[in-house]
Order: sequence, then structure tokens, then C-alpha cells
Amino acid sequence: MSESVALEAIAEVRAIDAFRKGFRAHPDQVNAPHSSDAEIVAIGPERWLALTTDALSSEISLGMYQDPYTAGWVLVMANLSDLAAVGARPLGLLNTLSLPPSWEGNVSARLSAGMADAAAAVGTYILGGDLNEAPAPVLSGSAVGWIEGAPLVTRVGVQAGDSLYATRAVGLGNAYATAFLMGHTTVARDIESVYRPVARLAEGLQLRPWVSAMMDGSDGLMTSLDQLARLNGVGWEIEFSSHLLNAQARRFMAGMNHPDWALLCGEHGDYELFFTVPENRQPAFEAACANWDWQPVRVGVASTTPGIRLHADGYAPFSFDGSFVRNLLTNCQGDWRAFVVAFWQYGQAQGLDKVILDTREAGS
Amino acid sequence: MSESVALEAIAEVRAIDAFRKGFRAHPDQVNAPHSSDAEIVAIGPERWLALTTDALSSEISLGMYQDPYTAGWVLVMANLSDLAAVGARPLGLLNTLSLPPSWEGNVSARLSAGMADAAAAVGTYILGGDLNEAPAPVLSGSAVGWIEGAPLVTRVGVQAGDSLYATRAVGLGNAYATAFLMGHTTVARDIESVYRPVARLAEGLQLRPWVSAMMDGSDGLMTSLDQLARLNGVGWEIEFSSHLLNAQARRFMAGMNHPDWALLCGEHGDYELFFTVPENRQPAFEAACANWDWQPVRVGVASTTPGIRLHADGYAPFSFDGSFVRNLLTNCQGDWRAFVVAFWQYGQAQGLDKVILDTREAGS
Repeated sequence: MSESVALEAIAEVRAIDAFRKGFRAHPDQVNAPHSSDAEIVAIGPERWLALTTDALSSEISLGMYQDPYTAGWVLVMANLSDLAAVGARPLGLLNTLSLPPSWEGNVSARLSAGMADAAAAVGTYILGGDLNEAPAPVLSGSAVGWIEGAPLVTRVGVQAGDSLYATRAVGLGNAYATAFLMGHTTVARDIESVYRPVARLAEGLQLRPWVSAMMDGSDGLMTSLDQLARLNGVGWEIEFSSHLLNAQARRFMAGMNHPDWALLCGEHGDYELFFTVPENRQPAFEAACANWDWQPVRVGVASTTPGIRLHADGYAPFSFDGSFVRNLLTNCQGDWRAFVVAFWQYGQAQGLDKVILDTREAGS
Repeated sequence: MSESVALEAIAEVRAIDAFRKGFRAHPDQVNAPHSSDAEIVAIGPERWLALTTDALSSEISLGMYQDPYTAGWVLVMANLSDLAAVGARPLGLLNTLSLPPSWEGNVSARLSAGMADAAAAVGTYILGGDLNEAPAPVLSGSAVGWIEGAPLVTRVGVQAGDSLYATRAVGLGNAYATAFLMGHTTVARDIESVYRPVARLAEGLQLRPWVSAMMDGSDGLMTSLDQLARLNGVGWEIEFSSHLLNAQARRFMAGMNHPDWALLCGEHGDYELFFTVPENRQPAFEAACANWDWQPVRVGVASTTPGIRLHADGYAPFSFDGSFVRNLLTNCQGDWRAFVVAFWQYGQAQGLDKVILDTREAGS
């Protein structure tokens, strides 16, 4: 594998690999590092435990979530979404919350309400946790779930020719991040009030028998696609059109006079699942879907050519360099303002800000 | 239960209760809040999952652990110790590490080495984790384990007359905290280099059939005893003598000219297990122990009289108010310097600093 398509081209991957260098592998752990949204450990015949941990960090330190209810909601859903991506049924969640004294009272009550409502919304439970004081808030959680019966699903298994889908149209997370980082304070508040992503647990269970690989969109579509491409040695041909876009997100972007491409290419996700269906299984899959109470959104197809190409009607294909965006914050020394400037410049240089996405009915 | 012996007399308990007010209880969760070191969820006949999460907070924000290796080691052992206290076999650990940029490179390599060595020392595994940037370091972890076969052990089940034991003599954690908080920098560094607490997993498994209740000593002996007293409606008669004290800890305290009582009464623990054995089971327990490769340290006996009384040879019993120490940091508005002053004053007022512990052979 060439340098540019290797996992190690991503700074975060190198940091994690360096950190876990001395760790012994569990003999019953099924997944390799980076290759699954949740850790999967065999615990019996056709039975696995799925475990994950996730913290909200920059969203909190930057103050993006104005209402701690949002933080509580997202914390729970972020962890459950990792279980959804491996088709696990949740057993419950634990949380470690390090809160500054200023969060006492109403602030932590809102945080708690967001956590309780999120867990209840998908029928699961917060089993316990740890509550500490810290100079700056850090919210972290973990979730445990079951997988019963084959097939196991991880991020690995994509073949060229596999069709790529999302559980829903995407972009609200990136509209939110755009509004916040570009200083549209009122719009950011409006988006926050409707930004309640839902871990696609039922969908993950339903999809497990059909898919060759699955990954959640916690860091946005392009970041997930870049990771899947590197893990599977494939590239992507993406149908870059408005059918991929959450309609509400599109209206918010239009209101801010920002181009739509950032909804698909930014690093703030919506916790939709992205998954691939093998070519030979696709007709049966499409037929089965017709009876579901939700409809997958077709995103594109896996290709033998490395890299990501965005196909928009009336334009030559755009090459999208996933490593550029994924390494950008590191290359900006963690400065989000610098990130935003460089991110928009990249899109302009690629000509993406001139793409007028087609007028097919937007998702909702 | 009177106000003073109720759980709600403890500020931390009230804070947790307020926070989790809106959470729904899992129908298969066995333990009530506050009543177990780990959350216990039934997953089949005579089979339970034990789950816990624990963060290092003040130790990190105060800079007590100079070597990140210590932080990594303690983070892993703190989580595993909660599994030990319910007699669970660990499946593995997850970690969420929020590190400032200054922790890159050597610092995080030391942290990682401490984590890897701790997991390997007790034969378990770090399954995965989440690595983030944050303005201040926050290290949190979670652990999952199995319990197979009755009886379940929690913090609840103590009857007056039950004998109280510890898995080993205690005090090194409190010697360390004393050295650090009282400004004995060199001594603190010396203690840190030997402070490698071990989660008593094998002992927890061995003890499960014998004990009426068990709790780890993550916050020191008196904090554990106060919690057990409140949960079980009992009091404690404690054999306040040097046999309870780790010999190394005692030498360090002598070197700093600080009295020994703080080794038993401070809030920094050593992750030993404290457990009770019912009166009618005690002879058989003592006989069984004689064949073990470790010997429990007898701490005292549960009593019908609420509160904790310390019995030292040649002195009238001392009353120890667990709620005073447990609420002290909150009452000092989180100021550890003020905590230390008030803590020593409390011991002086009780006459504890004049107690010369007897000369029975110290534990090691």
C-alpha cells in the first residue's frame, strides 16, 4: 500500500498506534485497532460483547454546545452510535463526568436531562458513573452491548463494486459547526435546538445481515469514507448531489450564504451509519428495503481506484483528499480558527464552493 | 435512620443522587446506587456483568503524580479494583484520555507504559480507547468483568457482630498524599516510586463465598467504613493499632514527623479490599485462610452502635466522624490546602495525634 493511502498517513492513527504500542492484545478480541467502531470480544459460541468509549472534547472546550442538554444528549448518542455500527444491542452506559464548580446546579441538571432523555429515546439505560471536579469540563462515556449470531460487521470487508449507503441524509452537524466556527451565533443557537442526533441502533441490527462493512458518521461523511478506503484498499465514487443532504441543514447553510459542500466534507457528524452492500446482494437488499420504515440513502460505489472522487452533475469529478482534512487540525496546531480558514481555502482550490448541487428532492 | 447516619449526610452522595434523579433503572441491574463498587447487571442464570468507570481527577489536576507512569498504573488499577470488590473476573478495560499538547511524546509514552504494565500485572487487557486533546489532562477508564455463580457480593449485607478485615495493611496512599500536600517534595517522589497498588482480583474471587459485604479502599479506610456503616445501619469498633499499617508507609510518616493516624483516616487509598465475615462463618473462614498465600488483616467488628470508634491500647475509644472528613473538601470549596489544615486540626481536637500506635509487628 502506498504511503498516501496507508492508515499511517493520518496523524490520529499514528498517535493511537504510538500510544497502544505496549498493549497486549486480548486473545478473544476480534477486531484489529482502527477497524471497528466498537471493540468486539468473543464471549461464547456466536456471542460477542461490544464495548466502546467516547468523550466530547473540542465541542466542550470550544463552548460549541451552549446548552449542556445538547452535550448530555450527544455524549450518550456518540457512545451508542458505536454500538449501532457493529450491530450490537445496548446493555447500557457508564459515564465519567469531570465538571468545574461552575457547572453545579442548573447546568449539571440540564446535562443530566440530556443524558436521561437520550438513553430513554433509544430504550437503554445509564447504569452508573463517576462524578468529579476538574478545572475544565470533560464528559466521557462508555457503552456495552451484545452481538448475537453471525455475521460480525466491522469497518473491514468492502470490495470494489459494493454500493455505499447512509441511514439518512446528512449535514446538520456540519451546518452547526459552520455556524459556530464562522461566528453566526444566532444560527448556531437555532441549529443547536434541533441538533438531536439519534444512534441508529435498530437500523444497525437490521443491516447486519446485509452489509460488507459499516461505520458511523461521528466525524462526518468524508472522514468515515477516508478511513474505510484506507482500511479496505478501495476508493470511492460519490454521487455528490443534494439527495445526500439533510434539508434543514441546507436551509441553514443557505441562510448563512455558505456553500453546501461543507455539509458533506466537514468533520462534525450526525451519527448516521455508512455501510456497503456487496454487488451480488444488492438487488435483494433494495427489495428488502422497500418494506422498511426508513429508506437508505445511496451515496456511491466502492472503486478499485484509490482516493475519493465527488461526481456532481455538470462538473468533472472532484478529487477529495481525506488525509488533508483529517490532518488539518493537527497541522493547524489544534487552532480551530486556522482550521476553518484552511478548510474553506481547500474547497475553493478544488472548485467545490462553485458546485451548485442538483435539485433532486433533499432528504429530511 | 437519623440524619447523621443517613447516606444523604454525605455531600458527594447528594450530588450523585441529584444528578441521576431522571435516570431510569435497568430492570436487570442488581445493585442500588452507592451500594456496590461496580454496577452489576444480570445477563443469564447465575451470570452477571460487572461494569465500572473511574477517573483520576484531583491527583492529576493537583500534579500529585509526577511520573505519568504512576497515573497510568493507578488509572488501570482503580477500575480493576472495583471489579475485585464484587468478585468479578475482568474481561478488559477501555480508556478515554484527554491530554494537553504538552503531554505528547515521552509523557504519554510513560502514561501508556504504566497502563500496559498494570494490565499485564493482573493478567488483563486494554481493549481500546479514545484519545483527545483537552486544555487540562483528564484520565478516565472503564472496566468490564464477569461474575459467575452466586453469591453476589456488594457493599450491603453487614450485620452487627460481623468481623471486618482488609486484604493487606494500608496507608501508603495516605503517606503519599501527606508528603505531597504538606510539601515534602523529596519524600513524595520517593513514595511515588514505590506506590504501585494492585487490584486484589484474585483475593476478591477467593473471598466472594465467605463475605457478607465488600468494598475497595480507593478513598482510604475511614471513607469506606463510613459508607459501609451508612449503607448497612451498623457502626464499627476498630482495632486502631499498628498491625493495620503498611510498614513502609509508617517509616515514611516517621521520617516526616507526622503522626500515624492519618495513614488510616486520610482520603487517599491503596485499593485494598475491606470485607466482613458473618460471626457464624468466622471460625471456618479463619481456618480456610490459614492455607492461603496471603493473610487477611483483622480490622475490627461491626456493632449495633452507629458511628466509628477507634480503640487504641491505653486510650479511651476515639469517635471518628466519617461525614466530617468526607464532606471536608466540599466544605473547603475544593481547596486542598484548607482541607489539610482542617484535617490535622480535626485529628488534634480528637486527640488522635497523641496516639502512639502499639508495637505489634507492622504489616508489609
